[in-house]
Amino acid sequence: MRILIIGGDGYCGWASALHLAARNHDVTILDSLVRRRWDCELGVSTLTPIHSMTERLEAWERQGERPIRFIEADAADYAALCDAIVTTQPEAIVNFGQQRSAPYSMIDRDHAAATMINNSLCNLNVLWAMREFAPGAHLVKLGTMGEYGTPNIEIEEGFITIEHKGRRDTLPFPKQPGSFYHLSKVADSDQIYFATRVWGLRATDLNQGVVYGVHTEETARAPELINRFDYDGVFGTALNRFCVQAALGHPLTVYGRGGQTRAFLNITDTVRCIELALQSPAPAGKFRVFNQFTQTFSVLNLARHVERVGKMLGLRVRIDHVENPRVERETHFYSSLNTNLLALGLEPVLLTDEVVASMIESARTFRSRIDRAQIMPKVRWKGLVRRSELGFLDSERVG
Amino acid sequence: MRILIIGGDGYCGWASALHLAARNHDVTILDSLVRRRWDCELGVSTLTPIHSMTERLEAWERQGERPIRFIEADAADYAALCDAIVTTQPEAIVNFGQQRSAPYSMIDRDHAAATMINNSLCNLNVLWAMREFAPGAHLVKLGTMGEYGTPNIEIEEGFITIEHKGRRDTLPFPKQPGSFYHLSKVADSDQIYFATRVWGLRATDLNQGVVYGVHTEETARAPELINRFDYDGVFGTALNRFCVQAALGHPLTVYGRGGQTRAFLNITDTVRCIELALQSPAPAGKFRVFNQFTQTFSVLNLARHVERVGKMLGLRVRIDHVENPRVERETHFYSSLNTNLLALGLEPVLLTDEVVASMIESARTFRSRIDRAQIMPKVRWKGLVRRSELGFLDSERVG
Repeated sequence: MRILIIGGDGYCGWASALHLAARNHDVTILDSLVRRRWDCELGVSTLTPIHSMTERLEAWERQGERPIRFIEADAADYAALCDAIVTTQPEAIVNFGQQRSAPYSMIDRDHAAATMINNSLCNLNVLWAMREFAPGAHLVKLGTMGEYGTPNIEIEEGFITIEHKGRRDTLPFPKQPGSFYHLSKVADSDQIYFATRVWGLRATDLNQGVVYGVHTEETARAPELINRFDYDGVFGTALNRFCVQAALGHPLTVYGRGGQTRAFLNITDTVRCIELALQSPAPAGKFRVFNQFTQTFSVLNLARHVERVGKMLGLRVRIDHVENPRVERETHFYSSLNTNLLALGLEPVLLTDEVVASMIESARTFRSRIDRAQIMPKVRWKGLVRRSELGFLDSERVG
Repeated sequence: MRILIIGGDGYCGWASALHLAARNHDVTILDSLVRRRWDCELGVSTLTPIHSMTERLEAWERQGERPIRFIEADAADYAALCDAIVTTQPEAIVNFGQQRSAPYSMIDRDHAAATMINNSLCNLNVLWAMREFAPGAHLVKLGTMGEYGTPNIEIEEGFITIEHKGRRDTLPFPKQPGSFYHLSKVADSDQIYFATRVWGLRATDLNQGVVYGVHTEETARAPELINRFDYDGVFGTALNRFCVQAALGHPLTVYGRGGQTRAFLNITDTVRCIELALQSPAPAGKFRVFNQFTQTFSVLNLARHVERVGKMLGLRVRIDHVENPRVERETHFYSSLNTNLLALGLEPVLLTDEVVASMIESARTFRSRIDRAQIMPKVRWKGLVRRSELGFLDSERVG
């Protein structure tokens, strides 16, 4: 299958590109490499030493695998995107090309605006470009479970049948996004649903949980293929951050009471879910939503799991409840379906002690690369960021 | 009350600015005058001869009324917007600053992107600027009934209580927007709801129906105060367009079967609704949604009403069913609540024969200004616009 992967230089995108190329698909990555520039802007770095795209792709070819094509372009540039689609004639387009950090989107107005424009303008461009040049291709778009927020009813996969005053309809599941990043994802989903209804495009929206893990089978094959792994207060997500903290002897930073429950999955399941979605394309005119996760945990239980495994490894681990920088419910009901991907054959890799141990071990391997100053959260949902705390901002407006 | 009106040069904005200034509020208009440029771009013109902003404001002062301040600036320019808010210290901000035509947003990718960026970036800017410089002000935002689409259940005002698998929650009413314009409005509503939850802003989202009518009490007072009135295939809305067609002897253009039912209100009720919303501000932290309309009609019934009144006036009127340029249901259930504004004291001006007759008479007054070539719809939801039909486009991409 000819597959165009937008955002193939990022954490999920890179792992997915290799996974698909290893299965002999004809993969093209389109990426502006902006993710690396965000690291520079924030003064942070991936725990793992990632290589340049050229080095990555050369190492992949040296494995004797099917080469991956690379187009350095921004999907926000409509002409460049159209050109890539005309050139590669994709049967499927996987769109990972998004600013994916909620804290980044909450730094200030400029970062909120940049997130909205990067994510929703690229999404809009992909839809119009597909309409013009690839109307039969299957769009696989990375959404997030965070689009739903934490409603007091079970979360369905994209749509819910509502009985109301004696009538009934199946409607988009109500969304309650919790940051400008999450808002952009909801807007994307609405745009895609519209494009399927009006233009007959086929699309699968993968509402993904929080991804954890360092390696997939393919990224582990050579040092040049290693994937990025973020632990900083802006791009680092809960479990990855906890494992780095355990490796370092830093307290595990649970935000607030820690009763926040979220959906999780291993990066090895992410790449498998992408493959499963691609293998069974949505029919023309269909907007298909899969909730892409394997387990749910409260943040506190996740920290306790890391604490327990860390101690088994002989580490000193303790949990700190730090002031929650976000505005979110800290105790709430949480239940969500994830049956669609299981029905397609997903066999979940669960979060065992061994998985946690291997993540802590990976963090210890790269211990010398850790910048302790980047671990604590600095971006607060309420109150503007103080410049003194953030070396990376020089906007006049941040006082 | 100190009121900043963003988009005060447009159809609803201008009428509202005068209505509020006549009631002795301290009104500032912020507008980039882009609405006039869109007319130039499309080669169309308002039926009524509107005057420059300077002439408008001078004529208003000559009425002995409280002067209206004018800031020529684009709300997409964050620094200019912040400056206006710091200068005027508004107690309320009314945001009409939006590209409001569904067909305009469907012309091509560039117009879809421009609509998204104009509407959602301005909305995002207003929220961040309020957070920084006017956290206590009341935001009144023009939404649209079109955000809801046409669900098969009754449309509530913004939120719906859902019972699902033995649990219950009150959640945002599911939206099914039908164009990139409507998508931008849904994204705006989501952003505003978020800002009220997280920052404690106070906001009222007015999901307005289709507005009709030429004059309000204030715009009728002097020729220089006359409001714009659009009848063209891009900016003209159903009833206004039918009245112009009747005045001209052009068949009334009903799109498809005409069973599309929509919510409507008179421009004289629009200005009153804005006033009512401002008089009873939403409490801090509250996202309040009012469905702002007075009656619902199917497009065919609306055309029949104009046909009947036109014949009473001695005109030859006939109805043509033209191919529907949009993708929408042509027969469907439609019922919506509008109790919030009625509870605040709105006394609807209903669509009587006299109202229709006065609109047709207005159209006859300006008959010589009508460009027949602009009446038929040219923008199709499916299939790209053909350049040969649209004098106004010179994008290379439109083939």
